[in-house]
Order: sequence, then C-alpha cells, then structure tokens
Amino acid sequence: MKILKDEDLCPAAVMRGAIDALETAFRAKAAGEMVSPPRHHVSFPKRGDIVFTVGGIDGERPLAGFRAYETFNGGQHSQVVAVWRADTAELQGVILGERLGQIRTGAIGGVAIRHLSAPTARTVGIVGSGAQARTQLIAAAAVRDISSARVFSRNPGNCATFAEEMQLQLGIAVEPVTSAARAVADADIVLCATSSDMPVIDASELKAGVHINTIGPKTLKGHELGLDVADMAGIIATDSPEQTRAYASPFFLSGTIHEKRMIDLAAIVAGLAAGRTSPLDTTLFCSVGLTGTEVIVASAIFDTI
Amino acid sequence: MKILKDEDLCPAAVMRGAIDALETAFRAKAAGEMVSPPRHHVSFPKRGDIVFTVGGIDGERPLAGFRAYETFNGGQHSQVVAVWRADTAELQGVILGERLGQIRTGAIGGVAIRHLSAPTARTVGIVGSGAQARTQLIAAAAVRDISSARVFSRNPGNCATFAEEMQLQLGIAVEPVTSAARAVADADIVLCATSSDMPVIDASELKAGVHINTIGPKTLKGHELGLDVADMAGIIATDSPEQTRAYASPFFLSGTIHEKRMIDLAAIVAGLAAGRTSPLDTTLFCSVGLTGTEVIVASAIFDTI
Repeated sequence: MKILKDEDLCPAAVMRGAIDALETAFRAKAAGEMVSPPRHHVSFPKRGDIVFTVGGIDGERPLAGFRAYETFNGGQHSQVVAVWRADTAELQGVILGERLGQIRTGAIGGVAIRHLSAPTARTVGIVGSGAQARTQLIAAAAVRDISSARVFSRNPGNCATFAEEMQLQLGIAVEPVTSAARAVADADIVLCATSSDMPVIDASELKAGVHINTIGPKTLKGHELGLDVADMAGIIATDSPEQTRAYASPFFLSGTIHEKRMIDLAAIVAGLAAGRTSPLDTTLFCSVGLTGTEVIVASAIFDTI
Repeated sequence: MKILKDEDLCPAAVMRGAIDALETAFRAKAAGEMVSPPRHHVSFPKRGDIVFTVGGIDGERPLAGFRAYETFNGGQHSQVVAVWRADTAELQGVILGERLGQIRTGAIGGVAIRHLSAPTARTVGIVGSGAQARTQLIAAAAVRDISSARVFSRNPGNCATFAEEMQLQLGIAVEPVTSAARAVADADIVLCATSSDMPVIDASELKAGVHINTIGPKTLKGHELGLDVADMAGIIATDSPEQTRAYASPFFLSGTIHEKRMIDLAAIVAGLAAGRTSPLDTTLFCSVGLTGTEVIVASAIFDTI
C-alpha cells in the first residue's frame, strides 16, 4: 500500500501514464463501464461541507475509489484520494494534498490534445501562469512534439518564473510575452488556465486550425473565453456533458446554438464520434473535471511510483 | 499531518484518550452538536460498495471527518479514516487499516462501563477471544480498577492466547475457563464479543448488579444474548437508538417491552437520563457503533501519538 503527498508527485514524471490511464477510462465511460455518480455533500453547520466524489472502472483491472475534500475556512486544504482494486479489495494507496487534482486536470487536457489537436502541432500559447497552466503545458508536451511555447500572465513576475521553470523542466523554449494576443498568435495549441471572469483573448487573434483547452471559468456569469471562440470552433468537446448541465450557474454555452453540438470526449476517444477532420478545423475543449477521474490517475501513479 | 497504520496503533496506549474524547462527543450529541448522518453507499456493479460514514462535533475544537470502507470480495480490507480541524481546514491526519475500528468499539464500551457499571467493579467475565474482546477488556481496565478476568472461547487455543496476552498487557490475572457460565459467574462486568447467532449465556448465570456489554450479533435473526438478559436488566442503553431502528434485520429488542425503555448513552453521559441507581441494578449496554465516532477517536489518537 502506498501513501503519497504533494512532494512525492512530479507532474512531468507521471503525466504520460496518467493520460494513458484516462484514455482507458474514457473508453470505459463510452462503453458504460465507468462508475461516476454525482458528488455527495455532508454539511457541518457554520463550518462548511465535506464533499465526496467517487469513481471506478470495470474491465480487466477494475478499480474503485474516492476523493474527499472540504470547504471549511482555512488557508491550507488537503484532499484525500484512495483507490482499491475492486477485484481483490486491496487498498492500492492513498494520496494526500492538492497536486493530484492539478495532474488530473492536466491529464484530461492531454487526452483532449491527443485526440483533437493537429498531429503536427509544435507551438503552444498559454494564458495563465499558475499550477493548472503548468500541468496543461506538461500534458501538451507529453502527447505532441512541442518545440516552443509563449506565455502571458497579468503578473510579469509569475510569467517569467513560469517560463524559466517550464523551459528547464521540458527542455523547450518558453518565452514570456506582454499580452495574451502575443502568446496565442500563430500557436497550434492554446491553453487558457486563468481565473478570469472576462474573455482573455479574441477569436480573431487565433489562427485557423488551432486547438484550445479552456480550464478556467466557464459559466454564463463569468468565462475566460467568449462565444466568438465557440463560433469559430468546428468541434466543441467536453469531458463531462452531464456536469456542464449541473453547474449552479449555467454553463457559458447554455442556450446558445453550441450547447447541442458539444461532444463527449469519451465518444471521440472511443471512436464513436468524429474529432478533427482537417488541418484547418479549429477545435475547442471545455475542461470541467469529470468526477471520479482522480481515482484513475491516482491508480496510474501507484503503478509507476 | 499524521499518517498511521495498524502497526502504529497500540490499543492499550490510546484507549484512555479515546474514551475521554468519546465522552466529549456523546455530550455534544446530547446537546445537538454532533453531526452523524446516515451512511452513504456507492455501488460498483458486480464488485460491491464503497461505504462512507461521516462525523464531527462542533464546540471549542470542532472536528469533521469520515471513514470509508468497501465490501468487495477479498481477503484483506483496509478502511480509510481522515480528520480535519473544522475551524482551520487543517487535515489532522489519516489512519489506514482495521485496528482503529476495534479501538473505537472498545472505547464506546469503555464509556458505557464508566457510566453504567458499579464504581467498585473489580472482576470481568469475557465471552469471545477476538480483537473486539481484547479492546473491550482494555477499555474496562482503563475506567475501572480491574483486578482479574476470566475468559471463555469455543477455541481453547485462542482462549489461552488471549489470557496470556491480556495478562501481560494489563498486568492483571486473566484465567481461561472451559465454559461461558464459568467466565461470567460472579463477574462485576461481563463482556460479550462473539459472532454467535445464539445466546451464549443465561441470565441465571449472571450475578445481580452486573454490567454487560454486548458487542456481537443483536438482530432478531441472530443474537449472542437472549431476552432473558434484557428482562433482568434494570437499565438498557445503546450508543445509537437511531441505528438500532435502521438495521436491515430488526434489532433483537424490536417489538418487545424493552424497545421503548432503551436509553441513549449520550443522555446518560450528559446527565439527562439516569444510569445505575443502586449496586444491585443490572445494566445492559447494546453496542451498535455510532456513526462518525471513528473520526472522534482518530482525532484523539492524533493528539497523543
């Protein structure tokens, strides 16, 4: 049984295995072999909630587990993720902290990039310089032969640190730039991982054939990308159509012509729906964080660490 | 943040602190300051369930956490218990394995013995020689000045091992005997911790004024103590009247004259209901395992280890 904390998890080292494991999980989802029930909340008066997400897949190597996190007031939050082998009842291990969630979201983005971006994609434009921006770029580099990236963030210090760290970690040129438009201009892949409630780029700044991952806010009340980007996209996909319909504030594409054409990433991975069909297709992936996927990624990490 | 496994937990070392912490929790329960919702099950087709119990108390040092366990087919089962400080969101720690549950049940028994047995109780009779029998005796010795014990188990080898181990651990005389009747004869405290579906002792074998903890089966379909013992008892208490009404198979006192007179141990601990009133009162405690108490005991262990 393994017990891992944030300091034990190197996103770049585990990303490829996490992406591969999630592909298997998305295929299981398409085949109806994934268990991914709605979140379960327990309230503690005046304090907040403990929230449980549960997930598992059946098949040759069935897994089951959960993630638990709290919404109490406090500075440091630690999630608890546990995974069992469902065929032997063996507790594979437990992961504590915040990093697994970032790796998970990165790996979901990696699956989307593998199945939607142009196979020849070489350049990445990033808006945002936080933990999610890092794991998205690591995921892009795990599935495409990335040669260079440009990053923009409102905070020039964070932007420079991001560029320096990522350049070192991934061995590619990463250039900090002074506007979002400059970051995404000519990029084959665009990664938006901000906390912005207002669109950070215009569709006109993107090149035809680009693939975009949007990680940040995506509700009607606030969204880091506008409808113009959705209008431009030939394909719009998400990891959980179910969850886009269950947001407390409606999803930013609700009530638009785009709502019905959103495709489940699982269907694309399983070959049940078409992804990109030409180099000029613009593709948009809306990352919502499919419930239960932390369990899949944690299991993949236990297998390799 | 602490991470503990079975080998880190010595029941005798942590029992007193666990009992004290549970007393505080039972007082909080009586005051309506304990959160202890029904179990939550998630099913994995063909495999089994993951079950979550959640618990917490408010007050000066608010705590919240959960226990998760599975019902998959397999030899080794490990539970996961996690506790947060609800006022700071700090994850106090995680305990993995099976031993915490035994310590928790022992400590609940200890609270019952402290509040229901005669303060002068010196001798213990035990039926059963498993892990639960051990933690019940450890709990009795933590709250009463026990000088000797007798133990009976169907398996003479286990019985002898139990006696030897407990004698060494607790520094009291522990004698293995050849019948349940001999174990409980003249005992001030009787601990039943068997898996028997049939009564293992007769009321006529007990002395007046005895206190009894029943840990094993307690449903109409199977029960280690019969109605004759309930008939003899002046006081019948349980740690969760709510849970006795929620058993899949009805509780063994359901439909009897005893059902309505069962007292919540929390009310006795809080002084809201009378416990023992005379040395000749026979008292019976039906241990059902109040949901959420693992969290309380885990927190007490984190405070001392």
